[in-house]
Amino acid sequence: MDYPSPIAKLINSFSKLPGIGSKTAARLAFYVLEMPEADVSYFAQALINAKRDLKYCSVCGNITDTDPCMICSDKGRDQSTILVVEDSRDVMSMEKMQEYHGCYHVLQGVLSPMEGTGPEDLNIASLIKRLQNEEVKEVIVATNATAEGEATAIYLSRLIKPAGIKVTRLAHGLSVGSDIEYADEMTLFRAIEGRREL
Amino acid sequence: MDYPSPIAKLINSFSKLPGIGSKTAARLAFYVLEMPEADVSYFAQALINAKRDLKYCSVCGNITDTDPCMICSDKGRDQSTILVVEDSRDVMSMEKMQEYHGCYHVLQGVLSPMEGTGPEDLNIASLIKRLQNEEVKEVIVATNATAEGEATAIYLSRLIKPAGIKVTRLAHGLSVGSDIEYADEMTLFRAIEGRREL
Repeated sequence: MDYPSPIAKLINSFSKLPGIGSKTAARLAFYVLEMPEADVSYFAQALINAKRDLKYCSVCGNITDTDPCMICSDKGRDQSTILVVEDSRDVMSMEKMQEYHGCYHVLQGVLSPMEGTGPEDLNIASLIKRLQNEEVKEVIVATNATAEGEATAIYLSRLIKPAGIKVTRLAHGLSVGSDIEYADEMTLFRAIEGRREL
Repeated sequence: MDYPSPIAKLINSFSKLPGIGSKTAARLAFYVLEMPEADVSYFAQALINAKRDLKYCSVCGNITDTDPCMICSDKGRDQSTILVVEDSRDVMSMEKMQEYHGCYHVLQGVLSPMEGTGPEDLNIASLIKRLQNEEVKEVIVATNATAEGEATAIYLSRLIKPAGIKVTRLAHGLSVGSDIEYADEMTLFRAIEGRREL
């Protein structure tokens, strides 16, 4: 015997999401059956609306429901600095810090020969165009501290530096609050390499 | 800055699901944006349909889209044995085994004084009614091997035995394929207690 079709379809939909196996999908689907009807309708509508109303900002490539996005159209922000990130969630992390007041550019991925992602698959062309048109003085490359993120940072720096624009990279080192004992060798090496005078 | 409203609403919906925190909810929501539109509509429709079309079987309390459910209306099944489980997912686990051909009864929970769940909150009254009307010879109590599951099993046995119906409980012991080295004391104790002659 299989599950009745309505629940089987819901389990199937949940199990298509990343990191959700068939057991978790079943648990989530049964949880939905216990939810108030209004919450379920809200959820269904949120799915439809998110897919329908969201697009990428034509300037920075961030996910948005207005074009240009709220950050690009905010004239109060420093237009001379562009912080380059891998995806829209990184923009949110930076914004939560509330200390960065420049602009962003979202690559929508990283260079990855393993997965066949080349420069033409990323949102790089529009970055170059922005650098030509706007008064940008500094590009901060904030790709992840992974091999792919590093490679993408180096690629971007080689591409942008010749135009006379300053290219910087986020500092690597110990996380705030972390123990040296538990830090990996690579992080310790970067922390020593990037040491600063007190 | 917050996420644009359509994605914020979707993240909010995902984060209401059990075991999904705000970071996972954001990851799932962004994944939905990359999904084909047809899959997203299917997902939304599955949510609505599951909530609208599914109900509890009036006989056994299993989740179903027909009443009585497919198992209760299957005359080929052994009507003299009822296997009592905590929820509908347990019925599926039993059915996957393909070795049990009797009927089921779904309690929709367990006795739990901690959570304020008493016998009147469970699907017990309808079980007693079945036992009075139908030709039941054995009730197999297959609640989980937890403290609450055990207490519920004992409660049911005291309730049903006086009517002259055999009440059994699933065997406790070592999982098939498991190492004695890693078994906990309680499981080992039950395994010794329930030992069988070779």
